[in-house]
Amino acid sequence: MTPLIMGLHAITEMLNSHPKRLLKVFILDSQKRDKRKSRVITQLREKRIEIEFISKDRLSRLTGSDSHQGIAAYIKKREEATLESFFKEAKRMKKCFVLMLDEITDPHNLGAILRSSECFGVSAIILSQGNAAPITPTVSKVSCGASEFLKTISVKNLPHTLELFKKEGFKIIGSNVSKEASDLNSFSYPEKTLFILGSEGKGVRSQLLKKCDHHLYIPMKGKIDSLNVSNAAAVFLSRIN
Amino acid sequence: MTPLIMGLHAITEMLNSHPKRLLKVFILDSQKRDKRKSRVITQLREKRIEIEFISKDRLSRLTGSDSHQGIAAYIKKREEATLESFFKEAKRMKKCFVLMLDEITDPHNLGAILRSSECFGVSAIILSQGNAAPITPTVSKVSCGASEFLKTISVKNLPHTLELFKKEGFKIIGSNVSKEASDLNSFSYPEKTLFILGSEGKGVRSQLLKKCDHHLYIPMKGKIDSLNVSNAAAVFLSRIN
Repeated sequence: MTPLIMGLHAITEMLNSHPKRLLKVFILDSQKRDKRKSRVITQLREKRIEIEFISKDRLSRLTGSDSHQGIAAYIKKREEATLESFFKEAKRMKKCFVLMLDEITDPHNLGAILRSSECFGVSAIILSQGNAAPITPTVSKVSCGASEFLKTISVKNLPHTLELFKKEGFKIIGSNVSKEASDLNSFSYPEKTLFILGSEGKGVRSQLLKKCDHHLYIPMKGKIDSLNVSNAAAVFLSRIN
Repeated sequence: MTPLIMGLHAITEMLNSHPKRLLKVFILDSQKRDKRKSRVITQLREKRIEIEFISKDRLSRLTGSDSHQGIAAYIKKREEATLESFFKEAKRMKKCFVLMLDEITDPHNLGAILRSSECFGVSAIILSQGNAAPITPTVSKVSCGASEFLKTISVKNLPHTLELFKKEGFKIIGSNVSKEASDLNSFSYPEKTLFILGSEGKGVRSQLLKKCDHHLYIPMKGKIDSLNVSNAAAVFLSRIN
């Protein structure tokens, strides 16, 4: 299936950074004279990208959503990176922060995590083929198109992948509240970090935690004592240096 | 609809500080002999608070979440605080961080912001009666009950309220990307801070920004360059010291 992105922000981003990936853009017929839309239309025409003006019903059916903001696009699938190619790249990078998602199954949380990952300069996202939400149009939209800009690598086995990262010189850090865990406020990420984020209810699974070099927690003062997982992700990622 | 809180920490907190607000407590049937749960059960029985033991499925449906830790409760709605009473309290506090929300209209974002606010020790939330989402049951649920622990104050006029805070010795800080803005990473919040968070699309309104002592931004590295507003809030709030 051709990937679809939606939302004005995602499409203008793609238009600016990878226009050739835009295969066909759908715009609400009723919005073609809208100021921001007509600016996009001009740019699309300059770049000879196909536009189709369609009805609201059709756009909603196409995107399977009502949050398309009047614009959507079929894009060329970005080739998923492979671990091998990523490791080659990582060798040349002085700093590298990779985010591994363990059992993040909610598409809204996944989308928001991808958005923050893109904002804070995560080098790659490791997803499990078995236990994570797939990157659907909803995820892509919630991520504001970040999913199409980020390097994502789907793997079969997270514990095994973790060992491969260790061999490449990465330090493994897991989000976890435990006696041995370090306070995020007095921690500095190693130059090559693989960070594992777990689900809200259960956290990172113990088979992964056991393999970590460090456990890290966000110090909190409240009575609730549990952040939404995408908010926790944003806090962890905001400390990437 | 009756507000609901969840999680062992939240419920024991309510039990210790305001037991009369607990109307009915739901506990996972499979956990009633669990050590920490049975301690809570004893206390609840002593205080003659109704308990119902239910299945995991029912508890998840009731809370709409998997982060209930096997316990949830219906509670009595709290009365809103007033600015006058809050200022009296604030005088006795050495440190105080107040969050003002300007035009945050999405209930999911508001709920997530309240949740993070509670986790990071925000002293009070200032909401505009006119331009913010009200604290509906959805907001309360998304906040995991944080809205029931936080002091929220609804005011008619944000710019005027801001002046009142100034008179009480608060420094006013607005989230804003501008030439004069300071980088969050090299900023330390004043002891008495009123922080203004704006909406995703428009940011803090200029009439409020003009009154700020400092503007503050989150440094970013990506192409999307815009965090989800609740994620941005979490990052700002995680730096409360």
